[in-house]
Amino acid sequence: MLKNIKPEIAYRLINHGPVVLITTSDKNGKPNIMTLAWLTVVNSEPPLIAIAMGKQAYSQKLIKKTKEFVVNIPDKKLIKKILYCGSHSGKNTNKFKNTLLTPIPSEKIIPPKIKECFAHIECKVINRYKFSDVTLFISKIIYADVEEKFFDEYLKTEKIKTIHHLGGGWFAETGKRFKL
Amino acid sequence: MLKNIKPEIAYRLINHGPVVLITTSDKNGKPNIMTLAWLTVVNSEPPLIAIAMGKQAYSQKLIKKTKEFVVNIPDKKLIKKILYCGSHSGKNTNKFKNTLLTPIPSEKIIPPKIKECFAHIECKVINRYKFSDVTLFISKIIYADVEEKFFDEYLKTEKIKTIHHLGGGWFAETGKRFKL
Repeated sequence: MLKNIKPEIAYRLINHGPVVLITTSDKNGKPNIMTLAWLTVVNSEPPLIAIAMGKQAYSQKLIKKTKEFVVNIPDKKLIKKILYCGSHSGKNTNKFKNTLLTPIPSEKIIPPKIKECFAHIECKVINRYKFSDVTLFISKIIYADVEEKFFDEYLKTEKIKTIHHLGGGWFAETGKRFKL
Repeated sequence: MLKNIKPEIAYRLINHGPVVLITTSDKNGKPNIMTLAWLTVVNSEPPLIAIAMGKQAYSQKLIKKTKEFVVNIPDKKLIKKILYCGSHSGKNTNKFKNTLLTPIPSEKIIPPKIKECFAHIECKVINRYKFSDVTLFISKIIYADVEEKFFDEYLKTEKIKTIHHLGGGWFAETGKRFKL
């Protein structure tokens, strides 16, 4: 079951560097999905993250207009859908339909979240900066939830494996967690 | 043996989200080390990364002055030194001395790199932005090297385990890589 967590601890869902799926929507509410590895936490309080997207990304155009997106965190089982969303443009493709991923309503923003992902972070853009062909969106976390069996204040990576992009066609999966 | 790699592929050393050690130096050349999880690739060509540092970090003050730093990538064996560098300030501490980590000269910038780390990315700051207590430094990669036995154009995470910070005292190690 999805458990709402405070935005101030939502950074713990992405702090270890997983590949994520970004959902957006156009002005008519039609949703899109994009695979993304280039993101970081910027702060926990206030809860801020940064995501980087190239100008060729259709999602980048949508975020510029709506200033909203969801960071959906997939586990390793979704790898084929992750790859599909990372290698097709949403401009002429319905990625929800083609991947059979299920859009479900977000709590605070219009873009939907992905039911099959185990955690979701709803964000509103507060600033953007352009560096050559890439736009960096600085965004505030306004709502977050996670499957409660995978989170005990921290992500239980012994129970859920995220994937991490090494570049090109290479990925690594997260191993067990340890405490120090 | 360290192998020089093109700055345009250096993002592959950090794309999977490892904890890194940032080395800096003050105006007299005295070096410092800081543990950092909040960084992302911004672009591969031109090769840009972003790192986020809180105002309490002594390293943040040094980077503002010198505009230079090295991203050193440690493997799991260095975990105790990683924790030490993340929980002490360099303002009144000589972290190289106290951790027995070895500073060796960088190729293009003044801050040294760490001999015991298996990869190094030399960076020059091109822009910085402040969000509440955190400064985001956008930086250009100007030189990078990696132990050649751990890199075949991509990081061989079956041979070298990086660590990933889940938050608090919790970490996960990288698992094996796979190709798709």
